[in-house]
Amino acid sequence: MNSTKPLILVVNDDGINAPGIIALITVAKEFGEVVVVAPDKPQSGMGHAITLDSTLHIKTVNIEGVTAYSCSGTPVDCVKIAVNKLLDRKPDLIVSGINHGSNSSINVIYSGTMSAALEGSLEGIPSVGFSLLNHSVEADFTSAKHYAKKIITQLLNNNYAKHLCLNVNIPNLSTELIAGIKICRQAKGNWEENYDERTDPMGRKYYWLTGKFVLEDNGTDTDEWALANNYVSVVPVQPDVTNYTLINDIKNLENE
Amino acid sequence: MNSTKPLILVVNDDGINAPGIIALITVAKEFGEVVVVAPDKPQSGMGHAITLDSTLHIKTVNIEGVTAYSCSGTPVDCVKIAVNKLLDRKPDLIVSGINHGSNSSINVIYSGTMSAALEGSLEGIPSVGFSLLNHSVEADFTSAKHYAKKIITQLLNNNYAKHLCLNVNIPNLSTELIAGIKICRQAKGNWEENYDERTDPMGRKYYWLTGKFVLEDNGTDTDEWALANNYVSVVPVQPDVTNYTLINDIKNLENE
Repeated sequence: MNSTKPLILVVNDDGINAPGIIALITVAKEFGEVVVVAPDKPQSGMGHAITLDSTLHIKTVNIEGVTAYSCSGTPVDCVKIAVNKLLDRKPDLIVSGINHGSNSSINVIYSGTMSAALEGSLEGIPSVGFSLLNHSVEADFTSAKHYAKKIITQLLNNNYAKHLCLNVNIPNLSTELIAGIKICRQAKGNWEENYDERTDPMGRKYYWLTGKFVLEDNGTDTDEWALANNYVSVVPVQPDVTNYTLINDIKNLENE
Repeated sequence: MNSTKPLILVVNDDGINAPGIIALITVAKEFGEVVVVAPDKPQSGMGHAITLDSTLHIKTVNIEGVTAYSCSGTPVDCVKIAVNKLLDRKPDLIVSGINHGSNSSINVIYSGTMSAALEGSLEGIPSVGFSLLNHSVEADFTSAKHYAKKIITQLLNNNYAKHLCLNVNIPNLSTELIAGIKICRQAKGNWEENYDERTDPMGRKYYWLTGKFVLEDNGTDTDEWALANNYVSVVPVQPDVTNYTLINDIKNLENE
């Protein structure tokens, strides 16, 4: 182990066997020492969940020739236990993904990939979540790897804030069709849900979540605009969810 | 059913049998028709997790004389399936809790209680999460109920924004010792984790998450300041996690 090389922690939410994390490991290996800590099963949609009431189990595995740990917990658990228990030094960078599917707009708050990255920045480590706009297990990660490489190069060569956290989404296009990188804000949008109601063989009802995304934002400075115009979207994110514009509107509650 | 009465949806993350939700139901019943949709087991620390890859199961139960559904999913699942499937009209208000333990500062992003409230506001329904600064199952909810009643009264009588979402934390004090209500911002703070490593009877290691909260904020306008000074803290929250102050600092990434 050469301690002068940067240490890069690789995490994800699709699980340690997902093609997207293999793609990200192969990119990260070009920059330094890589350690992988990832969920032992798919953990999409886990948001910022952590394991409080039960125990975590870790297995050492070998993936792409790097040290890797399979973790029974959530994506955020993986970051916490990596930084606070498994690693012998603080990582220089945390990369999460490459997620199979978009984490733009409101998806950021449901995303285990992005919650893992945000948790990394809370630990004082610059962190990036990468997502490709293709859910398929057979997705082509060539363009995503190309842009992950560009962004990791910049993060390791520049002195960005320790709490930097980036939400990077990559269009499902070949590299030459991508227009470049756009720094954006999170578009306002939401899911209109529907529940598909079915009956099991014992006559009991059960439900599958379905839904469609609705964009509620006409801005040309958003991640949704960038992606619709073939750009890689990069949104810096942070954990303060205070609604500052509403603080004055509700001051009258203090008089109760 | 009297459809002129307000409809209040009650959710939580400690599970449908927690004392805190019983306390909140008894308050909500004073204001209108109440329906409860809550997890069938404790779901603390579930953040904004949703169930994507498996099915949801619902059981009808009767709690405190109101219609109640026990749901196999997360707190956010409870809100989504309540609003989009189980209820026959849109609720006028969603109340979440009363949580056993604080959801101030950074705890908001890990909290199932607050994620359920935020999800309610995303559905266009004013929503409030209530938390009492006492983890015990035997906590005294008298003060929390007193302030929940005050705040629900204001929310039903005033024309606040449909996307209003409040994070309300109540000190673990008798009502006469509480100094009043303070509208605040989320304090900057973080958890310093530690993992308690143990060995199971088969010789395999496993880990329990432990840690202590570290306040990184000297402001007198924060939820932590308010709670330390015996106020009920009220932070309006919203789902845009863009780090607007960093957008300019990373513009150079566009040139890559």
